[in-house]
Amino acid sequence: MTLNRPISNLRSVSTLAVAAVVALGVAGFTPQATSEEMKMVEPAKILKQTGVYGLYNTYKVQPSYYMNSMADRSKAASQVLEVISKHAKSVYVQAYLTRGFEKKSDFLLRMHAYEPAAAQAFLIDFSATIIGRNSKITLSLIGVTKGLNHTTKAKSPDLLAALKSTPYSAAVPKYAFMIPIKKNAKWWNLSEDEKLKKMEEHTLPTLPFLVNVKRKLYHSTGLDDTDFITYFETADLVAFNDLNIELHSVSEMLDNTRYGRPIVMGTIMSVEDVVKALSK
Amino acid sequence: MTLNRPISNLRSVSTLAVAAVVALGVAGFTPQATSEEMKMVEPAKILKQTGVYGLYNTYKVQPSYYMNSMADRSKAASQVLEVISKHAKSVYVQAYLTRGFEKKSDFLLRMHAYEPAAAQAFLIDFSATIIGRNSKITLSLIGVTKGLNHTTKAKSPDLLAALKSTPYSAAVPKYAFMIPIKKNAKWWNLSEDEKLKKMEEHTLPTLPFLVNVKRKLYHSTGLDDTDFITYFETADLVAFNDLNIELHSVSEMLDNTRYGRPIVMGTIMSVEDVVKALSK
Amino acid sequence: MTLNRPISNLRSVSTLAVAAVVALGVAGFTPQATSEEMKMVEPAKILKQTGVYGLYNTYKVQPSYYMNSMADRSKAASQVLEVISKHAKSVYVQAYLTRGFEKKSDFLLRMHAYEPAAAQAFLIDFSATIIGRNSKITLSLIGVTKGLNHTTKAKSPDLLAALKSTPYSAAVPKYAFMIPIKKNAKWWNLSEDEKLKKMEEHTLPTLPFLVNVKRKLYHSTGLDDTDFITYFETADLVAFNDLNIELHSVSEMLDNTRYGRPIVMGTIMSVEDVVKALSK
Amino acid sequence: MTLNRPISNLRSVSTLAVAAVVALGVAGFTPQATSEEMKMVEPAKILKQTGVYGLYNTYKVQPSYYMNSMADRSKAASQVLEVISKHAKSVYVQAYLTRGFEKKSDFLLRMHAYEPAAAQAFLIDFSATIIGRNSKITLSLIGVTKGLNHTTKAKSPDLLAALKSTPYSAAVPKYAFMIPIKKNAKWWNLSEDEKLKKMEEHTLPTLPFLVNVKRKLYHSTGLDDTDFITYFETADLVAFNDLNIELHSVSEMLDNTRYGRPIVMGTIMSVEDVVKALSK
Amino acid sequence: MTLNRPISNLRSVSTLAVAAVVALGVAGFTPQATSEEMKMVEPAKILKQTGVYGLYNTYKVQPSYYMNSMADRSKAASQVLEVISKHAKSVYVQAYLTRGFEKKSDFLLRMHAYEPAAAQAFLIDFSATIIGRNSKITLSLIGVTKGLNHTTKAKSPDLLAALKSTPYSAAVPKYAFMIPIKKNAKWWNLSEDEKLKKMEEHTLPTLPFLVNVKRKLYHSTGLDDTDFITYFETADLVAFNDLNIELHSVSEMLDNTRYGRPIVMGTIMSVEDVVKALSK
Repeated sequence: MTLNRPISNLRSVSTLAVAAVVALGVAGFTPQATSEEMKMVEPAKILKQTGVYGLYNTYKVQPSYYMNSMADRSKAASQVLEVISKHAKSVYVQAYLTRGFEKKSDFLLRMHAYEPAAAQAFLIDFSATIIGRNSKITLSLIGVTKGLNHTTKAKSPDLLAALKSTPYSAAVPKYAFMIPIKKNAKWWNLSEDEKLKKMEEHTLPTLPFLVNVKRKLYHSTGLDDTDFITYFETADLVAFNDLNIELHSVSEMLDNTRYGRPIVMGTIMSVEDVVKALSK
Repeated sequence: MTLNRPISNLRSVSTLAVAAVVALGVAGFTPQATSEEMKMVEPAKILKQTGVYGLYNTYKVQPSYYMNSMADRSKAASQVLEVISKHAKSVYVQAYLTRGFEKKSDFLLRMHAYEPAAAQAFLIDFSATIIGRNSKITLSLIGVTKGLNHTTKAKSPDLLAALKSTPYSAAVPKYAFMIPIKKNAKWWNLSEDEKLKKMEEHTLPTLPFLVNVKRKLYHSTGLDDTDFITYFETADLVAFNDLNIELHSVSEMLDNTRYGRPIVMGTIMSVEDVVKALSK
Repeated sequence: MTLNRPISNLRSVSTLAVAAVVALGVAGFTPQATSEEMKMVEPAKILKQTGVYGLYNTYKVQPSYYMNSMADRSKAASQVLEVISKHAKSVYVQAYLTRGFEKKSDFLLRMHAYEPAAAQAFLIDFSATIIGRNSKITLSLIGVTKGLNHTTKAKSPDLLAALKSTPYSAAVPKYAFMIPIKKNAKWWNLSEDEKLKKMEEHTLPTLPFLVNVKRKLYHSTGLDDTDFITYFETADLVAFNDLNIELHSVSEMLDNTRYGRPIVMGTIMSVEDVVKALSK
Repeated sequence: MTLNRPISNLRSVSTLAVAAVVALGVAGFTPQATSEEMKMVEPAKILKQTGVYGLYNTYKVQPSYYMNSMADRSKAASQVLEVISKHAKSVYVQAYLTRGFEKKSDFLLRMHAYEPAAAQAFLIDFSATIIGRNSKITLSLIGVTKGLNHTTKAKSPDLLAALKSTPYSAAVPKYAFMIPIKKNAKWWNLSEDEKLKKMEEHTLPTLPFLVNVKRKLYHSTGLDDTDFITYFETADLVAFNDLNIELHSVSEMLDNTRYGRPIVMGTIMSVEDVVKALSK
Repeated sequence: MTLNRPISNLRSVSTLAVAAVVALGVAGFTPQATSEEMKMVEPAKILKQTGVYGLYNTYKVQPSYYMNSMADRSKAASQVLEVISKHAKSVYVQAYLTRGFEKKSDFLLRMHAYEPAAAQAFLIDFSATIIGRNSKITLSLIGVTKGLNHTTKAKSPDLLAALKSTPYSAAVPKYAFMIPIKKNAKWWNLSEDEKLKKMEEHTLPTLPFLVNVKRKLYHSTGLDDTDFITYFETADLVAFNDLNIELHSVSEMLDNTRYGRPIVMGTIMSVEDVVKALSK
């Protein structure tokens, strides 16, 4: 028994595990934020960097909300915007309307921050707004963005090139989906090379959908009761259904113990419009 | 490793997967809607086209509803009809009475639209009606209709002919059933030909029930936590029980990880009658 | 591939499946109701016929019920009896006290009707009574009674004779049990002969309990999230425990994916006494 | 196929099943109650007899309880004692404080009766007390005590002698645990001799804990959604943890499909003290 | 069959089981408390001793809390501190803010005591405070600290030396995680040597994280519905994610039937700050 397996090697294994799920947020152009950048959240940057925490929380508006007068409810949106503005330096907040699509929620909040506690501070304030106070949290998942490791870059150059060379070119996305994915112990016990093969196998059939489905990946093992959070945006739901069928039809699916449960579907809207739709 | 598997081939695989569940809404006579048709929903057409979204939402009327006066409750039906009328151009809405048959719901709303956001807009308004405000959503499933692919048409001509040649000829259906179905990873990893055999195997014993059970199929993989939504209408519940026993007795059942949970049973009624029955 | 497997053969398979669970409500003396009889429910007849729908609904009395005055609550029983009387021609209603035995319910309603919609109409009215309005439905299962097929009759004459020749001879039953049972896909894919053997295997050890446990069977595949509803009445709970141990100790138990969950235990009482006990 | 397996043989099988779980309440000194004794419950006797029904119900005190004045709450304990006293002839009631140890309950009621309906009658009255009215039942399990059969006595004399010869000799028990146990179909299909070996295997490592952990066993197959209810009392929680580790480390554990879920831990207190602690 | 396996040997087996999970709170420097020490809880000592009970309870603040005036809510923190102070001699209480990170809770209470009843007494008083009264307990897990046995010390000296020689040296921990872990029956049936190998296998890859993740282990088999409670503190969530990936990638993970569900993530704060954050 030897005690000296170096940390760097340990990390490369875990980072590969990352790559092997869905090839989202691909390698190279997602550098870690500098400490300077972390002082101020910029949406365009934080959505592309590694070492960023993504929080996906769904909420169900309670009947008590509608006992407030229409006048009071009409102020709800601006109140939420104020809270978002107050925390804008440390958290980037987006909202989605899920009412009618989901039994357990009416809206989804998606937050990005360099520090989870910053998102928590925002959520503490949000819960003190009129709609926050009258909403119940029904899901809360956290994950972190990570880059691909050198092994992957070296061994799958064609695949990575294909991932990079095909930009999204379809209509502006109208819907977003959040799908948690969990692997079984057998998958986690695969060797690096076996995981790389799995990654290639599942990435290949997804390439045709780069043009009409946007994707992003977060790592959650130990941080939450899922291994990965996958996030998608699209205007073409049939294509999205087809993409998911492809992901179901590869051998890696045999090792998924969770794929959704829930799959959260929301309409992409501004925070203001989400709150207004729920305040009718 | 080759990166050039064409999209068309990918699609044919996924579309076959569709066919292989239950041979509902069979091939040929379900063309995709033209953009002209999509401007205005026509029930007779939208129920037969592909590329149509079906939403199945169940609701439980809350005790608070009955704290409204009988007079107020008596207006609930017309209020719902107004909302349906307002959205009639973009959503076709049907209702079913589930009270007494289901623990988790009192009624089922079934919606068809060319765009899920249109159904969502209707549901936002519905939730602001007196019965909507006092009802809790307890299930929400979404799926899309798709056609069969050329492989299926070419390889199973006898089966397709049988499916097309036997019209429903029993009494007017009195009950509807919604049954979500989910396949395991092993099934999704079958080859096209293996899936085609499964489809033939499970379709054959269902042919005798074409005369007394109507059927419709939706695809949900990735859109929701089910792979398929199957919908049935019948006046003969013993025949329906027998049909389900046939579907349980084929090898494909070994690969179903979800068959129901819930099976939702409702009485087919007009929206007005459903709301009135619940307003007593 | 041949398309001409006749319906009659299909049915015989499914009906055998029925027999193979628990030999309850045995063959021959359960003729289907005539259309004349179906105009008017007669308890003694409907409990013995095939083609009859059994509904088992449990309810939990809500705290709000006890905010009604004792005087109002004392009228609850007669109000329920009125509703039962109003529907007596189309539904036969029985009640059981489950409070203290079950976490999820206080009482069980058992209904028999030739048409589920008739039971639903009763339940709509029941939910408008003072106790119905203040009770929450916590379980709802529906099944249909069916006869044995000719194969079973021909191949197991000894077993059927034994089932018919041993009448219940113990004390008047004091307790009732409702136990849903679901089979796995492997069981459903057994051949007719294999299912017949399973039926013989599980029926044999239950024969000694014919004298002290009454039984009845309903078929639910496709109608609800169970394959069978089994119902028992007894005054001897140790015998009932022993009977269930026998049913657990045969090979068929290996193919049960649901046996209870819940097992509902209730005390057999008149509807009036059940409502009065809960109105204290 | 022979129909004449005698009842006595059937019973011996089922009674052995009993013995094979955990060797609690061992053979010989637990005679069945005479009809004379059943007229009047005596705690010392009923806890040692066979044919006795044990009910384990947990309750969660609702927020509404604390809207009653402190003065009203101070009367709760005596009100419960009155109800217990009223039913003392037919039910023996004990209470345990679970608040802080369990998420789903604040207290556990343990009842012993010769007839479940007698316990139910008590519970109906209990639910009409101020604390009963404001508490929600969150678990309800019922089981019956049974003796060992002659086979066990004959074949494992050493083990039985060891069980009988080692009395509890540690400090007065401070905590009680209720652990439901369920076996899979494979276990139930074992032969008598195989079950006897399992019993010996799991009993042996538990012998050292006879001195510091008291035990009692109930049979529930068919009566409830568990096969056995095991009950323990101890003052030494490390010993209790060790005992459970022993029970996890025998081959029989491979056939347990339920071991707890929940494990209910309560502090042993008088009924009065339990109600008072919850009435603060 | 021999009845004389000594207790000491039994214990060594069970204590090894302890060691084989995660090498937390390692051997030697965690002596059992003397009866003198148990008279008065000292945080620094009780967190390092064996035979100590750890309780992890999560709570969800109910909407009713916010119906109290801001003035009343501002007193909540001092009221909780008073109760903690009252029980300081027998319970050491810590708090964590989980709002926004967890759907089922807003805060976590972590308690250490030599006697669970002492923690229960504190919790009874806590539940009578304004925030306790308006909070719902949503999780409650209890475990006990234990030392390693001689076998482990003798057979893995290198591993133990490595565990002892590497102190935590990163930034002050900002987040805490509570992860319940449960093993299957196969794992529990491993021999001592096999378990020791598993321990070595899973401990080795965790060594690099001793510098940036603190850890503590509790034993719960039989005390609660988990086998182990693992507790972590860190300022580096990427390292924590990597550590968990390592723990997923060893063969022992194949025998974990529970790893989280829930994983509870909280921000480390004083009790006062937690209550204040929730009282906004």
